[in-house]
Amino acid sequence: MNYRPTPEDRFSFGLWTVGWQGRDPFGDATRAPLEPAEAVRRLAELGAYGVTFHDDDLIPFGSSDADRDAHVKRFRSALDATGLVVPMATTNLFTHPVFKDGAFTANDRDVRRYALRKTIRNIDLAAELGARTYVAWGGREGAESGAAKDVRAALDRMKEAFDLLGAYVTEQGYDLRFAIEPKPNEPRGDILLPTVGHALAFIERLERPELYGVNPEVGHEQMAGLNFPHGIAQALWSDKLFHIDLNGQNGIKYDQDLRFGAGDLRSAFWLVDLLESGGYDGPRHFDFKPPRTEDYEGVWASAAGCMRNYLILRERAAAFRADPEVRDALQDARLHELAQPTAEDGLDGLLADRGAYEDFDVAAAAARGMAFERLDQLAMDHLLGVRG
Amino acid sequence: MNYRPTPEDRFSFGLWTVGWQGRDPFGDATRAPLEPAEAVRRLAELGAYGVTFHDDDLIPFGSSDADRDAHVKRFRSALDATGLVVPMATTNLFTHPVFKDGAFTANDRDVRRYALRKTIRNIDLAAELGARTYVAWGGREGAESGAAKDVRAALDRMKEAFDLLGAYVTEQGYDLRFAIEPKPNEPRGDILLPTVGHALAFIERLERPELYGVNPEVGHEQMAGLNFPHGIAQALWSDKLFHIDLNGQNGIKYDQDLRFGAGDLRSAFWLVDLLESGGYDGPRHFDFKPPRTEDYEGVWASAAGCMRNYLILRERAAAFRADPEVRDALQDARLHELAQPTAEDGLDGLLADRGAYEDFDVAAAAARGMAFERLDQLAMDHLLGVRG
Amino acid sequence: MNYRPTPEDRFSFGLWTVGWQGRDPFGDATRAPLEPAEAVRRLAELGAYGVTFHDDDLIPFGSSDADRDAHVKRFRSALDATGLVVPMATTNLFTHPVFKDGAFTANDRDVRRYALRKTIRNIDLAAELGARTYVAWGGREGAESGAAKDVRAALDRMKEAFDLLGAYVTEQGYDLRFAIEPKPNEPRGDILLPTVGHALAFIERLERPELYGVNPEVGHEQMAGLNFPHGIAQALWSDKLFHIDLNGQNGIKYDQDLRFGAGDLRSAFWLVDLLESGGYDGPRHFDFKPPRTEDYEGVWASAAGCMRNYLILRERAAAFRADPEVRDALQDARLHELAQPTAEDGLDGLLADRGAYEDFDVAAAAARGMAFERLDQLAMDHLLGVRG
Amino acid sequence: MNYRPTPEDRFSFGLWTVGWQGRDPFGDATRAPLEPAEAVRRLAELGAYGVTFHDDDLIPFGSSDADRDAHVKRFRSALDATGLVVPMATTNLFTHPVFKDGAFTANDRDVRRYALRKTIRNIDLAAELGARTYVAWGGREGAESGAAKDVRAALDRMKEAFDLLGAYVTEQGYDLRFAIEPKPNEPRGDILLPTVGHALAFIERLERPELYGVNPEVGHEQMAGLNFPHGIAQALWSDKLFHIDLNGQNGIKYDQDLRFGAGDLRSAFWLVDLLESGGYDGPRHFDFKPPRTEDYEGVWASAAGCMRNYLILRERAAAFRADPEVRDALQDARLHELAQPTAEDGLDGLLADRGAYEDFDVAAAAARGMAFERLDQLAMDHLLGVRG
Repeated sequence: MNYRPTPEDRFSFGLWTVGWQGRDPFGDATRAPLEPAEAVRRLAELGAYGVTFHDDDLIPFGSSDADRDAHVKRFRSALDATGLVVPMATTNLFTHPVFKDGAFTANDRDVRRYALRKTIRNIDLAAELGARTYVAWGGREGAESGAAKDVRAALDRMKEAFDLLGAYVTEQGYDLRFAIEPKPNEPRGDILLPTVGHALAFIERLERPELYGVNPEVGHEQMAGLNFPHGIAQALWSDKLFHIDLNGQNGIKYDQDLRFGAGDLRSAFWLVDLLESGGYDGPRHFDFKPPRTEDYEGVWASAAGCMRNYLILRERAAAFRADPEVRDALQDARLHELAQPTAEDGLDGLLADRGAYEDFDVAAAAARGMAFERLDQLAMDHLLGVRG
Repeated sequence: MNYRPTPEDRFSFGLWTVGWQGRDPFGDATRAPLEPAEAVRRLAELGAYGVTFHDDDLIPFGSSDADRDAHVKRFRSALDATGLVVPMATTNLFTHPVFKDGAFTANDRDVRRYALRKTIRNIDLAAELGARTYVAWGGREGAESGAAKDVRAALDRMKEAFDLLGAYVTEQGYDLRFAIEPKPNEPRGDILLPTVGHALAFIERLERPELYGVNPEVGHEQMAGLNFPHGIAQALWSDKLFHIDLNGQNGIKYDQDLRFGAGDLRSAFWLVDLLESGGYDGPRHFDFKPPRTEDYEGVWASAAGCMRNYLILRERAAAFRADPEVRDALQDARLHELAQPTAEDGLDGLLADRGAYEDFDVAAAAARGMAFERLDQLAMDHLLGVRG
Repeated sequence: MNYRPTPEDRFSFGLWTVGWQGRDPFGDATRAPLEPAEAVRRLAELGAYGVTFHDDDLIPFGSSDADRDAHVKRFRSALDATGLVVPMATTNLFTHPVFKDGAFTANDRDVRRYALRKTIRNIDLAAELGARTYVAWGGREGAESGAAKDVRAALDRMKEAFDLLGAYVTEQGYDLRFAIEPKPNEPRGDILLPTVGHALAFIERLERPELYGVNPEVGHEQMAGLNFPHGIAQALWSDKLFHIDLNGQNGIKYDQDLRFGAGDLRSAFWLVDLLESGGYDGPRHFDFKPPRTEDYEGVWASAAGCMRNYLILRERAAAFRADPEVRDALQDARLHELAQPTAEDGLDGLLADRGAYEDFDVAAAAARGMAFERLDQLAMDHLLGVRG
Repeated sequence: MNYRPTPEDRFSFGLWTVGWQGRDPFGDATRAPLEPAEAVRRLAELGAYGVTFHDDDLIPFGSSDADRDAHVKRFRSALDATGLVVPMATTNLFTHPVFKDGAFTANDRDVRRYALRKTIRNIDLAAELGARTYVAWGGREGAESGAAKDVRAALDRMKEAFDLLGAYVTEQGYDLRFAIEPKPNEPRGDILLPTVGHALAFIERLERPELYGVNPEVGHEQMAGLNFPHGIAQALWSDKLFHIDLNGQNGIKYDQDLRFGAGDLRSAFWLVDLLESGGYDGPRHFDFKPPRTEDYEGVWASAAGCMRNYLILRERAAAFRADPEVRDALQDARLHELAQPTAEDGLDGLLADRGAYEDFDVAAAAARGMAFERLDQLAMDHLLGVRG
């Protein structure tokens, strides 16, 4: 196989990813700025299908209206020239110092109002550019110390903000849904809605829950030590996987944003297996940062690597599922039994069934092996490409 | 102050806490078994108000009906003699090897049915003993490898189990609610419903969501690096804090179950501050393990320490909230503004308000300090008891 | 390739690994005991070359001298029959409750003396069985609370113990070296000598430092979030890699002891690359625990998987190093420059060289890309077997 | 007590701490630059005794010689006016993009040479200003991917660099020692010499080991989940605690640099207890970052809080050690036995002592409780100030 991506693979990249200049908490930029239009062209050449942006990626913060128009026009031209689409957009509510204590949940009411207006402005642009998903990462919604944030009040404000944005897109008739992106910490000591679970639970308290889903990011869940495919599975189970951010992370530490495939490779294999079989049909969006050791040649190598690794893993996962020996092992591991109801006979049937309790041979059941190691080694063999 | 607990403080302990014999993954028991009735007597002497149990704590697994009755009778006598109540009970679905692959989500259907019957049997006893909360910790519901568990199918089974149990208590007319206890890992590599957020989200998909809440445990959330008071605040915000497990944990590592106050002391301070002011009126339940270095004298010292530390922190949190300088600092930190709606003028008002965006002085807003460090140092002063 | 292990591959297993019965902090044993002789036979059949043991694995704690002799005899017979060797042995200083506060650093002096005698007794047996390495894992040397252990005094006792053991093997003329095995925590809250670094530093303060090296375990370093190959590299650089424990771990959590290859697969690739090229010629020792979901069929599948994964990774690492495109990429990444001295011209030369500072073109140097992403993607390609 | 610091308390601060402008990976500066001379004045007013600096903190990177002299002169004047001293200085080898792949271990040889010259230049200034300790934090010495760095070659280069610097200060006759500062990760994916242990071990391989010690930072060890007082104890035990960086960190996550006392308070208590009793007589140096939510009023409140918390903890630790009940509890916990040699009778004595093994009553020894919980609760009481 050649593992060469095409637009049919639905790979998308944020402008802020390939355009990251390499500024980190301890160091200055190592790369010159990248023109959005240039990013579009290069991504198209590499085989991507979409590009995404924060308002400030496209239009520098504080631009005049005329400058804004010029930036958007240049971007549109590049999209038209390349055929790239804009499946998603989002708001930068974290870089400017005005958001140092948050945006939708800043203690300062005027900052919250400003954040909402900034978001609405970019929602208009997103809709205009054809985006169907609007991501909300509340990276500054949090605290470093206990009394600095009344979390229940903050959740009230968060709900108020999302309800208001939902009303706005509804009134405007935009075909746009929101995808909330959880993260446990960094840049705040603790961030509100820290995991996929917390975001899913929060959504249920909104006025129009159907408008909101999640945008989980590989590294964000792994920063809490959580199993990413498990989180995705719960999001899918809840019909709430609206978008996904693919990247790599080496365990619990600062947010690394490595290219997809770096970090926990086995987890990436199970993730692709799940995305490809689990009914997710949105973009495969890469939210990574090419390491600051790289020049632009390295940036594009890194972007290409994200897609290549996805394609390799997709092929391997498909081979795993198609292998008769794997099917046999899944049978031995009784996955088919897990798919069966536990009590299709209902409560009464269960209570009346002496075989379920009084006459159940606990010792015999306890002695059955689950055959998981054989199954997992078959997965490893497929991941490493040592079978057929 | 003397920090001596009384039943009015509503402190409760699990039989399995003071009765833990000290068996760990690398070592054998260091303490002799403790009779449940003896545990009840000692806890009452120390000032506790309640005692809780897993079925197998009270009635050894596999007991005959006659033995079962005798165990329950002895326990009841001790309760009657001491005045201790049973506010909560739960099922052991993890110790016996039959549960090695889970209980409600075991791949084996007969194990799932057995687990449900075992649970129902103990629900009857819980109701009989007056418990109002039934805790469900699914410690074995998870996996160590990717193909061993289809998480979506497992969530279907989990939902089926809880729906069935909800139907049962409803049919029986029991005044009993379920509290799901999340944990990210250990004893399984990854456990389903790993955090408070995931459990809250799951509950929304059940048939009778009002019957289910969460039972968060300090150490379990901290094993994922999450801010425990933040999780509790979201549970309270969702009206789902049905019960709580208090203990101590030193960060992300194996489940330590230290006495309350050990581990992250500052977090414990904010937790007590929140529980005392946040409308939680359930028991303060200690789910800890006296270190296996201790003999029974150490066990009781440890149990007494849990309650003492809670009382000290309760006093300190109250003093913090009552201090005029703290109120002043909270004002400087604009917590009162966070309590105000962001857009009581509605979407139209917000969109029409030029002061919110076009004329907003971003630089001036960005320059305002939040005064959080002064506030946090005041909290530290109160925690350490160096003021007044 | 067939990836079938032979004794030439020098794979060894602990009796306690395949013989682990599956007892964990929340559950009872799921497997029946395994006879040491049976373990030897099965391991030999699978292609292992060596077997290792704790004293209590071979001879149950408290056995009479006659029983002891019988156990040793049966074990020897199995060794003789299979050709398996005993490259390493170690002492169980953690299971019995007498060691609840440590062995060499227990507060109780008589426990320390007992621990030394127990160790010496097994050193005799190890020497008799031909072991060349004696591993020392001080799993109970630590504390859960701050005042419980004076760490400096404990390090004095630790030094005293190792000096004494070193004197003993020297006096006896045993051809045996010690390998200290670090671990950060579990079963103690914090364990002394928590990482490879701490153990290497400690060794330098011993009377006969040449007798002591380290026995790093994959999962132990990863429980502290450390890069395992980096730790191994420092041990090799210090000529102190005397032995190694291979297994798998999914990040910072409880000690998982997964089979080798599970957990961080990319790290395993770099580890094998380093072991095979770095001059380590000791056994490849697997210290893992077949999950308690497995019956004995699963145990042997798991053991076979450890070796198979090592062989696959060995093949892949060799292909990576042999690939001309990789060599080219390494050149671009200037690894050859790292191998050159920085100042072979000495201090005076460096100070006199204006090109090194005054005339150094910092901007030009800063602009050079490191080409690491291309290199890492080549490694990924080799790991996944997608290159010729 | 008033907890007001004086120069006798030996508190020092880095220019980069109070002068941190709040730039983080996701946000721009929130505070204006702070003049070094102004920092000196304010720190003196707060009661500090010393100030420390990176070369680039004092003299902006790329300054002309004339500008450099002017900066140094202004700084000296402020020192003279306030009486503040400069106990330590260090080099910035991480901010400029030229160091993106490291300094002493950069793959590029010319970068390594430049780094050495930059360091030597600032060593001259440090000596001139009277510093006695020169800190070396190799924040960029590391890698994000496996083949990008040959760790053994890198350690050769690291050794070469330190040996050369040691030769330089020796030749110059400077009364200056080096303190190596370990950190596990951030800004690199993995940093060389990741913990106190690794640095201590590395020092033993240098040409003049007596010239080098460690400068452990609270948060850096805690980012690896390690017990900070344990690490400090091993450094003291090795006579290698040359300097210390005090701050706060909430567990395993990004580098937080909270003020001292924030983060793990119980650990801070044991740290102060150890520093005050363990023979460390160097500065108590705060290396923290006032959160970017703060304006300069918050910065100074934060700096003051660091010192105040140290003084409170110092008082509490002294009270703990002086309390007769504590001494009694320490006796019960047999700390005095840990201070005794295990085998003052030598190897022969131990081997001949039947009481040590053959006649040792294991069961009785195992049954003794360690009384650690009582002891730890006494410590908690003292920490919280609820005793006397």
